[in-house]
Amino acid sequence: MTARTDAPATEDTRTRLLATALRLFSVHGVEGTSLQMIADALGVTKAAVYYHFRTKDEITEAVAEPLVRRLVAITEEAAAQRRRGAQIEYLLTGFVDLVVDNRVLAAVFSSDPGVARAIEKSLNHAGDFKKDLIRVIAGPEPDTATLVTANVTLAGIALTGGSPELASVDDDTLREHLLATARRMLGRPRSRP
Amino acid sequence: MTARTDAPATEDTRTRLLATALRLFSVHGVEGTSLQMIADALGVTKAAVYYHFRTKDEITEAVAEPLVRRLVAITEEAAAQRRRGAQIEYLLTGFVDLVVDNRVLAAVFSSDPGVARAIEKSLNHAGDFKKDLIRVIAGPEPDTATLVTANVTLAGIALTGGSPELASVDDDTLREHLLATARRMLGRPRSRP
Repeated sequence: MTARTDAPATEDTRTRLLATALRLFSVHGVEGTSLQMIADALGVTKAAVYYHFRTKDEITEAVAEPLVRRLVAITEEAAAQRRRGAQIEYLLTGFVDLVVDNRVLAAVFSSDPGVARAIEKSLNHAGDFKKDLIRVIAGPEPDTATLVTANVTLAGIALTGGSPELASVDDDTLREHLLATARRMLGRPRSRP
Repeated sequence: MTARTDAPATEDTRTRLLATALRLFSVHGVEGTSLQMIADALGVTKAAVYYHFRTKDEITEAVAEPLVRRLVAITEEAAAQRRRGAQIEYLLTGFVDLVVDNRVLAAVFSSDPGVARAIEKSLNHAGDFKKDLIRVIAGPEPDTATLVTANVTLAGIALTGGSPELASVDDDTLREHLLATARRMLGRPRSRP
């Protein structure tokens, strides 16, 4: 193997490694997945995994990064809408799409505080992205009732996206029902097609 | 030390160990907590921890067991109510109480699939307690819309109970708003005091 072919091969291993980690996370949870398991599933040595990532936290961050970046972008774009109604609608639609596009992953990452911390640490620019998300839904200076409803809505959507009870429901149907539930919870009128 | 005092001391260590593990889980997540960290926080050796629990899974199970047992009991008691309305009301009230009584813990345990699996494995008699829970809320043969709403409601309540954004809200206020949100989501009338 020449030096020239090394770079693409390495990039390919990294991509395969992340896809494998994601698959194992979704089956065993982040906690139940070891670097050794990732190496075994890839058919490489643990040393080969270490070449790309020194810790499981680094893998977790790399797997979650695109998801968090898209979430931050959706929140910023939603906040940039003029009317409050449009802000909420933009965020709900974007959030539900994101969850449905990453059904199992969303459930894994929406909750474990260790994982959430690891992600926030790695994405300093993203800052307090969960707080920003809630702020768009709940508005400025929300009362406790509004804050609770916003939290229940977003957390419920994120976890339900990965619920095993709904694994047989197709993406479009799940998207439609999640959006309808969220709108009902937040007292939003139905969108007109 | 005589043999007579050994048993209570051992029992006491086990109780302190579980309380310490719970505290560390809530700060670092289950994933971020090692047996060594638990030993250090207790001021004992790792061997002393091994005397009580061979793996972190066993500790996780022991910490979660009372919570899951109560959840199973609430579900059974709710299912035993005569009217559908009473079943839902009983389950919602019991579930919200349980979450509020275990705010951070509920969030930690409601989501990580590895933790959930470990608990279900240890509590064979509890069977598929999440499915039973959903069944009481959604009723027999629910359509997809009802199933999604039930999932979003229960998952949202469980995670919101431990939300850092709501840490400053006192238990009674949180309980009241969670219950109001759940009733609104499920189209339940307000309970009359």
